Amino acid sequence: MTVTDRLLPPTQAIEIILREVRRLPVEVVPLAEAGDRVLAEPLVADQDLPPFPAATMDGFAVIHDDTSPWREIIADQFAGQVVDVEVTPGTAARITTGAPLPRGADAVVPVERTEVRDDHVIILQDDVRPGENVRPVGADLRRGEVLIPAGTVIGPAEIGLLASLGRAQVAVSRRPRVSVLSTGDELVDPDQEPGPGQIRDSNRFSLVVAARRAGADVVWSGRGPDDAESLRRVLLERCAESDVVLTSGGVSVGEKDLITRILDDIGTVHFRRLFMKPGKPFHFASVGQAYVFGLPGNPVSAIVGFEILVATALRAMTGQQPVLPRPVTVVLEHDVESGDRIEYQRGVVWADGEGVLRARNTGSQSSARLMSLIGANAFLLIPPRDRLYRAGERVRAIIREPIEGQPEGDGGWEPGG
Amino acid sequence: MTVTDRLLPPTQAIEIILREVRRLPVEVVPLAEAGDRVLAEPLVADQDLPPFPAATMDGFAVIHDDTSPWREIIADQFAGQVVDVEVTPGTAARITTGAPLPRGADAVVPVERTEVRDDHVIILQDDVRPGENVRPVGADLRRGEVLIPAGTVIGPAEIGLLASLGRAQVAVSRRPRVSVLSTGDELVDPDQEPGPGQIRDSNRFSLVVAARRAGADVVWSGRGPDDAESLRRVLLERCAESDVVLTSGGVSVGEKDLITRILDDIGTVHFRRLFMKPGKPFHFASVGQAYVFGLPGNPVSAIVGFEILVATALRAMTGQQPVLPRPVTVVLEHDVESGDRIEYQRGVVWADGEGVLRARNTGSQSSARLMSLIGANAFLLIPPRDRLYRAGERVRAIIREPIEGQPEGDGGWEPGG
Repeated sequence: MTVTDRLLPPTQAIEIILREVRRLPVEVVPLAEAGDRVLAEPLVADQDLPPFPAATMDGFAVIHDDTSPWREIIADQFAGQVVDVEVTPGTAARITTGAPLPRGADAVVPVERTEVRDDHVIILQDDVRPGENVRPVGADLRRGEVLIPAGTVIGPAEIGLLASLGRAQVAVSRRPRVSVLSTGDELVDPDQEPGPGQIRDSNRFSLVVAARRAGADVVWSGRGPDDAESLRRVLLERCAESDVVLTSGGVSVGEKDLITRILDDIGTVHFRRLFMKPGKPFHFASVGQAYVFGLPGNPVSAIVGFEILVATALRAMTGQQPVLPRPVTVVLEHDVESGDRIEYQRGVVWADGEGVLRARNTGSQSSARLMSLIGANAFLLIPPRDRLYRAGERVRAIIREPIEGQPEGDGGWEPGG
Repeated sequence: MTVTDRLLPPTQAIEIILREVRRLPVEVVPLAEAGDRVLAEPLVADQDLPPFPAATMDGFAVIHDDTSPWREIIADQFAGQVVDVEVTPGTAARITTGAPLPRGADAVVPVERTEVRDDHVIILQDDVRPGENVRPVGADLRRGEVLIPAGTVIGPAEIGLLASLGRAQVAVSRRPRVSVLSTGDELVDPDQEPGPGQIRDSNRFSLVVAARRAGADVVWSGRGPDDAESLRRVLLERCAESDVVLTSGGVSVGEKDLITRILDDIGTVHFRRLFMKPGKPFHFASVGQAYVFGLPGNPVSAIVGFEILVATALRAMTGQQPVLPRPVTVVLEHDVESGDRIEYQRGVVWADGEGVLRARNTGSQSSARLMSLIGANAFLLIPPRDRLYRAGERVRAIIREPIEGQPEGDGGWEPGG
């Protein structure tokens, strides 16, 4: 039995995917377009920030151990406007947050602790420490420091750092070009009324949203034709124009499972079936320079298969780190029956008042029941042990969304508020 | 002292924001454009799904208590192609996953448990239960059931449900139109070399990415002019063309804090200062139909202020539910000094092997140090009690990203794999 026919555990399937997929090329984009892209090179500080000692409060720049009862105001030092003065004993300079400390000064007294009389200021604070309310050179970052590792998704803080360091152009991984193709005689478009035995195509829409959320550029989506020859032509065309082609349907063992046969014919199939639930039939193939993921037709299987396997491939192709999520441990709130395959149950995980993660599933776990994904912020990983996991037992879970406190919490939103 | 001058706890500031902001209008978009939008009306099932009893496996549709040693294959029932046959004792119909069960049949035997000889099939499974491998009518959803509450962000599962129910058009909240304006004499663009006392503008880029991630349509971003009259004109123009204007800088108590004075002049200021760290100076004002958030110039203060207050306003404006995150409880890994204001420390939260959430902060919490946000998946909420919080004590945290297991975990990625 070859690897392609074995029921593969998801870990082995992921190993194969990570071995097969290649990194996409790097491209340089203007800073303003770098948001949510994957940084291709580490960001290393090529300078100290701040480059000058800067005030952290609005107030007066002084010499900390100057004991003069009042001081002459010799300058106004605003951020962005440098005056060349020197603070000496008996003098002070007005200064605003972020402005450079004038020569001679070594501390800033906040405006609330001063009293201004004409061109003089009285310092009302008894004890001024050297460096008080001053951000020294290099306090925020030091030349040579690795600030952001390659493979990081560029969010608000990352783009802010890139801007601070003058990176007007940023090297990022090209977005994966993805095509989404649903197959199946029984499918009609959402605006059509299904006839006897027909259902509306939902996977195409689900997979487009999932692919965009994973950072892909969805270049095409549609329903595949019913006959083998046209489907083969569409698939070849999509593979020529995409990095990744997602199909749904046509991969189980029935006679009309066209995708299976076409992939065997036009490409190299790496595996076909997974030892997981939902999503046992799952093809992964190379066709030319493209990768084809043949997802199951069941809507839940398609989404779970995307998140566990396809999203991993996309992260690997863009060099995103970490490439795999690290599961957490959670305490079950109710009994869960395990099956004959590893099960990715859709669940809700929250933290109780002691900070312990607790989990329940979302009810019936049928792989056609999209409702099992609504409100599910986690996949509960139920090992294939054919036994009951009891309420109070611990299992592992992959978290999909930020978790929250328990719904029946104390209601307070902030501490000490 | 009016409310605008008091140091407001963040909870009170949020109450004011939620009282002031109005819901944006609802618009109807094609299904394919509904991803990541906020659903404006609950999705209620207007039909049962599946609408017919459907096979969940490829195999043969049979009568469960038929004891015939072999059965005539009377039809091929593919998904999407309904044949009008009736399964009677001594007969069976070939059937594929998702196809409707023919009349008379009440169970499906998987193809692996059958043996086909010419036009006959032998059922190798001893005991067939009625309904086995059949999804009954309404198993996935029942007419009248509320499937998705209004205010839900439309993800892969939600759009799949909308498609399944034939919603080719979807009512969603209009995206908030947001303008982003940085102010400050000391700022230069990222491609410019800062002169003495100058720094590069980073907040504009951070706030654009943050606003987009929060679902906004960023209609404009730029640096404000230095003189009061031009700045006032730009601000009025932005307010006329935006639902929300974000400014950064110009809000502390120094003499050049232009935004404070302009907002007083052109609009109604609801509050100016918050009892929180970072982000004490923080303005919220109404100018015509627009809301202005005057964020501090410090990069960390701007991002934290955005996430805690502006993102909340945007959720309220689009009707997103829940509007506020529920903090979790976490165990501190190290001592943390509390200050005189509620502090939103940037931190890393993970779950240990027992499922307990543990937290550390990201080092120096200076509000100019963007590095404190890199890798921070949470804000640790440190109450203003002027005491040391010790390692092992519990505090609360707002989780920003999906949490993971501890880095030094057992390395296993799946159970039983």
